[in-house]
Amino acid sequence: MSKALERREKQRESLIQAAQKSISAGGLAALKTRELASEIGVANGAVYNLVADVDELILLVGSRTLARLDAALTEAEGEGAASPAEMLERIAVAYCDFASENLELWRALFEHRMAPGKPVPEWAVTEQMALFRHIYAPLAVLFPKRSPEELGVTARSLFSAVHGMVLLGLEQKLIAVPVESLRREIATIVKAMVAGLTK
Amino acid sequence: MSKALERREKQRESLIQAAQKSISAGGLAALKTRELASEIGVANGAVYNLVADVDELILLVGSRTLARLDAALTEAEGEGAASPAEMLERIAVAYCDFASENLELWRALFEHRMAPGKPVPEWAVTEQMALFRHIYAPLAVLFPKRSPEELGVTARSLFSAVHGMVLLGLEQKLIAVPVESLRREIATIVKAMVAGLTK
Repeated sequence: MSKALERREKQRESLIQAAQKSISAGGLAALKTRELASEIGVANGAVYNLVADVDELILLVGSRTLARLDAALTEAEGEGAASPAEMLERIAVAYCDFASENLELWRALFEHRMAPGKPVPEWAVTEQMALFRHIYAPLAVLFPKRSPEELGVTARSLFSAVHGMVLLGLEQKLIAVPVESLRREIATIVKAMVAGLTK
Repeated sequence: MSKALERREKQRESLIQAAQKSISAGGLAALKTRELASEIGVANGAVYNLVADVDELILLVGSRTLARLDAALTEAEGEGAASPAEMLERIAVAYCDFASENLELWRALFEHRMAPGKPVPEWAVTEQMALFRHIYAPLAVLFPKRSPEELGVTARSLFSAVHGMVLLGLEQKLIAVPVESLRREIATIVKAMVAGLTK
């Protein structure tokens, strides 16, 4: 790698880290490329030599958030043997924990909208979809006769339901719940859903 | 009522209606008091003689959205006799329908944040909470031995789970689902949750 390319890589990495810090502290609304440029010591316009646009920058931060979420769910799965139903409960609670510990970065995953007319790039969609395997795998054991498409629908539903509980539970707006009660309640509801689906 | 008070009431009503139209068309981000003032024919500053601030205006629009949601759920409940479990399914599907037919107004209910440090006024919280009776009532029949507090927690969980499915289902971002499939899937999941909880 040439010296110039090497420097660009380093600056790009600093930019992504600065953006991550900014989102983590104040959410997407706090992200100002002008401030990031000043923080990493480049001219304002130079940011766009490092990333195509703000959307790409936010997606790159999102990609790291997803990688850490993936690691957190994998760690939860590794915490001893469990039935597929118990595994789904454990994954749901781990999702809740991750969200509460990474509140703004997690919110940014869902609040970010591409500029009008611009689709989410293929690589980002693929990364998001890959996370569904954590739910899909135990469901495939529970429902061996369902088609991959049917399992996909159920995985999506379970995820959305748990996401809703985490979202409104952590939001402290309409529904304020202490995290400990939220974790318990999520486990109860996932257990009920799975029991109801298998009966 | 004096002529001046009467005129103020009329202008206030026009302002709320203009705000509702604006949110309905472009979401909260599209709401500009300057444009509303010009639309109802008052000076910019005069808006703040009609409502305390933008938060109050948004809450007043939200109040009407909640009243229409309340009516929609009540109508669904009136569509013939049903077991409590069937009633919960019906309410969940009616919630999905309302959200898809009033997408931006419904989103605004959840996206609106008060100015920092300002609590949501008591009357707005009371209105929001009153809607939970649609879920609470069938749950109280299903679980006659549970305390009001326990029923409240379950009502909150069911609502949040259904809300998550509607939110991600209608968002067409991570998870694109046709409304018809979404309605079916919500019914399936609510049925499973209730079956699992009662077993």
